[in-house]
Amino acid sequence: MAGSGRPELRVAMIGYGFMGAAHSQAWRTAPRFFDLDAEPVMATIVGRNAEALEAARVKFGWESASTDWRRVIADPSIDIVDVCTPGSSHVEIAIAALEAGKHVLCEKPLANSVEEAELMVAAAEAARARGVRSMVGFSYRRVPAIGYARQLIAEGALGDVRQIRALYLQDWLSDEEGPMTWRLDKDQAGSGSLGDIGAHAIDLVQHLTGARLDTVSGTLATFVTERPLLGETVGLSGTASEERGAVTVDDAAWFTAKLTGGLADGAIGAFEATRYATGRKNALRIELSGSRGAIAFDLERMNELEVYDATAPAGKQGFTRIVVTEPEHPYMAAWWPTGHGIGYEHPFSHQVRDLVQAITAGTDPEPSFAEGLQVQRVLHAVESSAANGSAWTPTD
Amino acid sequence: MAGSGRPELRVAMIGYGFMGAAHSQAWRTAPRFFDLDAEPVMATIVGRNAEALEAARVKFGWESASTDWRRVIADPSIDIVDVCTPGSSHVEIAIAALEAGKHVLCEKPLANSVEEAELMVAAAEAARARGVRSMVGFSYRRVPAIGYARQLIAEGALGDVRQIRALYLQDWLSDEEGPMTWRLDKDQAGSGSLGDIGAHAIDLVQHLTGARLDTVSGTLATFVTERPLLGETVGLSGTASEERGAVTVDDAAWFTAKLTGGLADGAIGAFEATRYATGRKNALRIELSGSRGAIAFDLERMNELEVYDATAPAGKQGFTRIVVTEPEHPYMAAWWPTGHGIGYEHPFSHQVRDLVQAITAGTDPEPSFAEGLQVQRVLHAVESSAANGSAWTPTD
Amino acid sequence: MAGSGRPELRVAMIGYGFMGAAHSQAWRTAPRFFDLDAEPVMATIVGRNAEALEAARVKFGWESASTDWRRVIADPSIDIVDVCTPGSSHVEIAIAALEAGKHVLCEKPLANSVEEAELMVAAAEAARARGVRSMVGFSYRRVPAIGYARQLIAEGALGDVRQIRALYLQDWLSDEEGPMTWRLDKDQAGSGSLGDIGAHAIDLVQHLTGARLDTVSGTLATFVTERPLLGETVGLSGTASEERGAVTVDDAAWFTAKLTGGLADGAIGAFEATRYATGRKNALRIELSGSRGAIAFDLERMNELEVYDATAPAGKQGFTRIVVTEPEHPYMAAWWPTGHGIGYEHPFSHQVRDLVQAITAGTDPEPSFAEGLQVQRVLHAVESSAANGSAWTPTD
Amino acid sequence: MAGSGRPELRVAMIGYGFMGAAHSQAWRTAPRFFDLDAEPVMATIVGRNAEALEAARVKFGWESASTDWRRVIADPSIDIVDVCTPGSSHVEIAIAALEAGKHVLCEKPLANSVEEAELMVAAAEAARARGVRSMVGFSYRRVPAIGYARQLIAEGALGDVRQIRALYLQDWLSDEEGPMTWRLDKDQAGSGSLGDIGAHAIDLVQHLTGARLDTVSGTLATFVTERPLLGETVGLSGTASEERGAVTVDDAAWFTAKLTGGLADGAIGAFEATRYATGRKNALRIELSGSRGAIAFDLERMNELEVYDATAPAGKQGFTRIVVTEPEHPYMAAWWPTGHGIGYEHPFSHQVRDLVQAITAGTDPEPSFAEGLQVQRVLHAVESSAANGSAWTPTD
Repeated sequence: MAGSGRPELRVAMIGYGFMGAAHSQAWRTAPRFFDLDAEPVMATIVGRNAEALEAARVKFGWESASTDWRRVIADPSIDIVDVCTPGSSHVEIAIAALEAGKHVLCEKPLANSVEEAELMVAAAEAARARGVRSMVGFSYRRVPAIGYARQLIAEGALGDVRQIRALYLQDWLSDEEGPMTWRLDKDQAGSGSLGDIGAHAIDLVQHLTGARLDTVSGTLATFVTERPLLGETVGLSGTASEERGAVTVDDAAWFTAKLTGGLADGAIGAFEATRYATGRKNALRIELSGSRGAIAFDLERMNELEVYDATAPAGKQGFTRIVVTEPEHPYMAAWWPTGHGIGYEHPFSHQVRDLVQAITAGTDPEPSFAEGLQVQRVLHAVESSAANGSAWTPTD
Repeated sequence: MAGSGRPELRVAMIGYGFMGAAHSQAWRTAPRFFDLDAEPVMATIVGRNAEALEAARVKFGWESASTDWRRVIADPSIDIVDVCTPGSSHVEIAIAALEAGKHVLCEKPLANSVEEAELMVAAAEAARARGVRSMVGFSYRRVPAIGYARQLIAEGALGDVRQIRALYLQDWLSDEEGPMTWRLDKDQAGSGSLGDIGAHAIDLVQHLTGARLDTVSGTLATFVTERPLLGETVGLSGTASEERGAVTVDDAAWFTAKLTGGLADGAIGAFEATRYATGRKNALRIELSGSRGAIAFDLERMNELEVYDATAPAGKQGFTRIVVTEPEHPYMAAWWPTGHGIGYEHPFSHQVRDLVQAITAGTDPEPSFAEGLQVQRVLHAVESSAANGSAWTPTD
Repeated sequence: MAGSGRPELRVAMIGYGFMGAAHSQAWRTAPRFFDLDAEPVMATIVGRNAEALEAARVKFGWESASTDWRRVIADPSIDIVDVCTPGSSHVEIAIAALEAGKHVLCEKPLANSVEEAELMVAAAEAARARGVRSMVGFSYRRVPAIGYARQLIAEGALGDVRQIRALYLQDWLSDEEGPMTWRLDKDQAGSGSLGDIGAHAIDLVQHLTGARLDTVSGTLATFVTERPLLGETVGLSGTASEERGAVTVDDAAWFTAKLTGGLADGAIGAFEATRYATGRKNALRIELSGSRGAIAFDLERMNELEVYDATAPAGKQGFTRIVVTEPEHPYMAAWWPTGHGIGYEHPFSHQVRDLVQAITAGTDPEPSFAEGLQVQRVLHAVESSAANGSAWTPTD
Repeated sequence: MAGSGRPELRVAMIGYGFMGAAHSQAWRTAPRFFDLDAEPVMATIVGRNAEALEAARVKFGWESASTDWRRVIADPSIDIVDVCTPGSSHVEIAIAALEAGKHVLCEKPLANSVEEAELMVAAAEAARARGVRSMVGFSYRRVPAIGYARQLIAEGALGDVRQIRALYLQDWLSDEEGPMTWRLDKDQAGSGSLGDIGAHAIDLVQHLTGARLDTVSGTLATFVTERPLLGETVGLSGTASEERGAVTVDDAAWFTAKLTGGLADGAIGAFEATRYATGRKNALRIELSGSRGAIAFDLERMNELEVYDATAPAGKQGFTRIVVTEPEHPYMAAWWPTGHGIGYEHPFSHQVRDLVQAITAGTDPEPSFAEGLQVQRVLHAVESSAANGSAWTPTD
């Protein structure tokens, strides 16, 4: 903002789909609600299709557009590269950006394979030595209810966490006549429910407890193996054809995990990720059961957190529904008065806030690429286990 | 946005408190998510304290600032005046702006008295003849769950509405040692819970049903009549002194109303507005019971609507919890995928969208100043009834 | 039970409708779960229609049946008379029984008028001097969640109660073609929603807080003034005729009340009783808001109580959903393990337990007839206020 | 009941613990609410400790008591033997009773091993040829919400069931200083959470869908391996000693299952049974996701069922919370009016009703011993899988 007196950080965003919209809103909004030590500038949006890109530039509010990401990365005026492309291109873009000295925010999953993720971590660590920052976009960590739960857990409110239930339930594939999309093609998407939404559940559980999923026993399933191909694409939608394409990713994934370290050492978690949970639209549900208490969270009610205190007098025990909109709750002092909730995109603003502050302070933002890699290893172990009769498989 | 190719509408916003923050975010955000026929430009923010104003300009993202609202209204480059000041100044500013040919968005309540509101309506109607638009900011009408409920009701889902429960429950005065503020002083605030939050309940019930509150029987109460005065103000907070100030507005209001017209002709409603509902942070709860069905809404869960169909087979009847995030729901196609909720401030963006589109289309946006006046009359009738032993009092 | 070694208390129950079924189950069940100092014996069931009565005797499990209540009351072997008839006959039966030296349990409402109730109180007090006990059947007092709420309130968990919401919502009249019944005829029923279900709300609020409703401002409405008459009765149901009968009682009642005394001195309560709350089947909802906390209860989830502690750290405040099935909760140690809920009829067993224990201990059970009379006075004041333009009306 | 004119069925109940109390209440209550074709008579209660037994006889309301179950089974006046003892004695008692020509109701789990259960099935089938009936007590099948869900599923409300979540969550072991009991000793209890509560989840899923769990991949865990031994028992409680005993059963169990047949052919289910789910008291939660709809049930709110209709218009879809208290719902016409819920023990009355009616009609009640055996085989397969690194294991 003109007149802020703060240094600028010029941002280039690669990609302009769903995540591009969410990130744009965050770059625009964060400095208007949080006191940042630098002012992010929405400089350049990057994509391949020039016409659609220009429409996105105007819609999302970027100064300029470019179809050449390499040129943008080479632009010395750019400070931050925000990678919102599909996972298959992360490795190339992120490494190039880091090598060019740009701070990088990379959407999750970090990459489509452990090998790619390892290359990215190496690049991030090399860049870090030169003061270049990197961050992977597990945005749900910055839902205030999650942040507050983490505080409570760190304070000992749960004692030893023994059991975990972590489900990410969606239902957009319930209709078996829903069309084939690139997200259901392993070559393009890498993974199905497991990598797309299961990754969030893994990251949150580890973030909340400080523990790691150490070994896993997993199962994958594909309920509908063929879906109608869309005909020639006209605009954003298409016309259904009579041909069908093969679904080559998992529709749903289940896994049991043994955790080590942190506040959940020895705990066992049951995970599920599915796009077939009829009626559940975006239900990321986390329940942690500990020796002294429990917490329960459901993303469909993201402004609420349920907390159980097993040390209260027996007659008074129960799950307390906290409306997580108090100034005492993470990030909430910047928004609205008590009781006025936030929405899906606000955690992206929190992410921008923390990234900008880390860059200006010269510290490392979280989650790091290394954390992204570790999640990738868990995903890989689940797939290996599933391919091996659910045998218990270490994550490293 | 540069390059949008759309005509611009330059906005001046008077006031920079809580509502100023919410309106700023809406002016900034609406054109990035909705396809508008004009591009609003955040031109000038107006306030009295030059230093605080400049901080607000930077924080909220306006091009320029001015401490002289009359000069801004006289500025021919300004198209829209957005009045976010306390109610006592609405009449003067809004009428001046309308007379200067500016479209006006005025925060609720429209004014602090029926007389003022009548003057404003006259000005709005005169301006309307010259193509100048006016709108009062009952933003909750544009919560998607409310908009969808209205559609259902219009389609006959409730049959004849017979009973209404409309409560607006907050609790920020529960602590009797909470400090005195201008909001508790009748000279400055005009009204307490009744005008501040009860007005929303009145507007929503009338909006949902198309009926009017015709006669009312009301009661007002002040539970804590003196509160500590803050000492010398230092920054945003202050230090408590031992002196106490008199609370001269209502802490809570209750009224019963008979409705006429629309889809609730002959219905009876029970209303409550309070800042003493311990544990309820922002619970605007509306329940409509009709001959064929019912709806229930709670602003603390603003992405949900509960609908009951009394014509379903007896065994299958129940309240259906709709997660109001489908593209079929009002405004939601512009935001995020199914299941990804919105927050408190989004309805302000919907308000901007509808105002801009009305201006460019040359139609009248809703709610009109006349609707604002009518709510004011209801508030006045409640106060009169309360002062008269709860005698039934007509609203006109 | 043979062999219990306890003295017997022989019971006669007058009436065999819905309440007769509930009371029978309680007389049968209470001694099997609670340690009673006397064994109630289900001796005689009394009604007018000999054939239906014998069927009820067998169905409900009574030793003998009689069509002559006066003869039963004169029977020296009877110890307790349980009055389950419609309100219009309470005065005659209860007074006769008390004068005959029988302990009396009388269903609510105590009577159909204040005058009748006063006669009954006089008789109860005269009998009390002779060691004869009397009790009115406000059974919901003995829902464990209510009993526990009362304990919490007495311990100061709410501080000063300032606001009360007490609604009893049913919907069985929503269908305007539902048939005329005696319950809708003032001559037979005395009152509509107000006396039938509103009385419970009044009693519970007073029981929970120890305060009294001191003055009231009320409104009554009848939404459907004529309903189809049933034709000749065949069995339990009938055939609809084309004739219609006049509904002469209130369909719904609303009133605001000022309380005095106890822990709610100076509080204001908003009450509603209705049979038109579409979708609400038996929703007796009580919410008390105090200076230190709040409680919320809904009979549709009778095994739960929500409690808010406003003295907890701000970030941790929220409504705690207590599953009221712990041995620490009133009456629950006698039933099932933690988490195993009870049903509608269990509070009637609690009522039997407390009556039997009071009789054997020579103490007065609660609620007394005097308490029943006081509720009657409140009902009368509401009706008077409604007939007088909602003018504030004292309850005594 | 004297005078019922119905033939009598004389019952002997073996065991007088928690299940003895629940069954006694059911034998006493069922004939008072349901129209039965025979009148059950609570003839004899059987146990080992004569003194405690006599107390139970009086408390639970049986005519006589006996410490010799063989003698009772030999008594020609006894028609039905109700086995409520721990699982280790089921095989001997049930087979003896069947061979003596008594109808047998046997508590779940049917036995402590597959081998025992097979013997019992053989005995039941031999007896069946002689008109002797047998039934295993999976009482939750007869929760009205479950029965109604089953009807809906059979009518096609869910289409093809694809995913199942079935959790039975309790928390009574969360406190690691809770004492050792026989339930935690494998020699006595056979199994821990898996057999005790997981068995209910298995039975319900199979009952609801008509499918069978075909292969399973399981994990068991014991979180607290030693617990304080109680000292000398005094009355019902004891005094803690400093000695500790070894917990030799599972504290928690997780398994994934592939289903075949019925309306869930090809479905995959995720199961969990635990006594460490802090804050969950008796949360048996079943969620079935199908191609056309979904249902969700939680035993902590046993009078409610949530149903999702994926064929409704998109904007109107949502989970409908049905209060399962309508006369249209299974068993509910016999109880209370709409909205008046039932409690934990009522399904036992439904079980008695169905058993008595099957005996008098000469039909086979469900669930049969064969169904109990099949559940046993699933439990065994889960244990085998867990012992074998979670390898997929067939259930037959």
